[in-house]
Amino acid sequence: MLSTTPRTTLGRKKHRAVTDRSALHAVLDEGLICHLGIVRDGVPLVLPTGYGRDGDTLYLHGSTGATSLRTAAHGLDVCVTVTLLDGIVYSRSVNNHSMNYRSAVILGQAKPVFDAEAKMHGLKVLTDHLAPGSWEHAREVNAKEFAAVSVLALDLAEASVKMRAEGPDDEPEDVEADTAWAGVLPVRTVYGEPEPSKDLSPGWTTPPHVTGREW
Amino acid sequence: MLSTTPRTTLGRKKHRAVTDRSALHAVLDEGLICHLGIVRDGVPLVLPTGYGRDGDTLYLHGSTGATSLRTAAHGLDVCVTVTLLDGIVYSRSVNNHSMNYRSAVILGQAKPVFDAEAKMHGLKVLTDHLAPGSWEHAREVNAKEFAAVSVLALDLAEASVKMRAEGPDDEPEDVEADTAWAGVLPVRTVYGEPEPSKDLSPGWTTPPHVTGREW
Repeated sequence: MLSTTPRTTLGRKKHRAVTDRSALHAVLDEGLICHLGIVRDGVPLVLPTGYGRDGDTLYLHGSTGATSLRTAAHGLDVCVTVTLLDGIVYSRSVNNHSMNYRSAVILGQAKPVFDAEAKMHGLKVLTDHLAPGSWEHAREVNAKEFAAVSVLALDLAEASVKMRAEGPDDEPEDVEADTAWAGVLPVRTVYGEPEPSKDLSPGWTTPPHVTGREW
Repeated sequence: MLSTTPRTTLGRKKHRAVTDRSALHAVLDEGLICHLGIVRDGVPLVLPTGYGRDGDTLYLHGSTGATSLRTAAHGLDVCVTVTLLDGIVYSRSVNNHSMNYRSAVILGQAKPVFDAEAKMHGLKVLTDHLAPGSWEHAREVNAKEFAAVSVLALDLAEASVKMRAEGPDDEPEDVEADTAWAGVLPVRTVYGEPEPSKDLSPGWTTPPHVTGREW
């Protein structure tokens, strides 16, 4: 079960909260980009970045452009949010229009991973999430690259999942009036055809870990 | 031109910053969900929510589940980030894997819109963004609904756009070694087939503003 501290308890629409850990993992495993919130100079800053999950640990790259991230030697208060948009909900009234979605919100302290073995593991988790198969296929991380990157770990202890996955929720009088269409327009993310690099040598065919990838 | 205050100046990879206003508008107009960052009890909170843009004003719903939003009568420090994922960049080295994306980051004070006409305009802008055509097609906002919703306006004065839209950026020695595939796997968002509401009366065909919608 997910913890339901006051910070992650939803202020409204509690029926949309999901409290099992597998739902949290599912959202995190399907998304590719998270939105990382930090407080800088007293105001919020939200930046998109990649991530990866192993068990109940979320890994983040330190090289996200946020200076504060790289200098947070002792941990940094963060909020990491991953959102999957599933559909546009057209209701009979403007007011009841909505979106179907799944989102995960994680609160905690992101801590730099200093131990070399643990840090390399974090890089593998990040790579496996961004590009499954690439850790085995591509050239490994060398010592210089390893030193230049920082990896942050965030425990998934304090997290909440929220979702909407249903049709329009119209007022009975609007259903009765029958003056507007109602339904859901699904939204999906898909991969297109792989585009080989312009400088790729002619002998290559696109490998299965790229061609076979599905969202 | 976008303002480049110290807060929105990128700490690294400055060549990825885009400083014209049309690029900002384009990202905001293509996205459907923003990630709204606020500071609550001293820590960051990032929530997904809808939005709409009119000129250089971004409108947000007040009913996002964030109590702080609804009680911020005099404006609330926010960071609004919209990210579009365009592709996975497979490089010859693990370290140079990346993503193609476009993102907009807006800093400022979100202020409640109290004037009735301006508030109704904000609702129209929000609806036109979420579901173009629905403002004309669906039942209009009634007095009770109008009173229950709050609309926030955020000026786009302090904003930055960042993007990556290119192939792999490999080390010369990795290109020379030629031991791994390199290229981009495009990512696209698409709409599926509209799903009429289960309680829709039999006479309806799906209207053009839904069937004709393209990402």
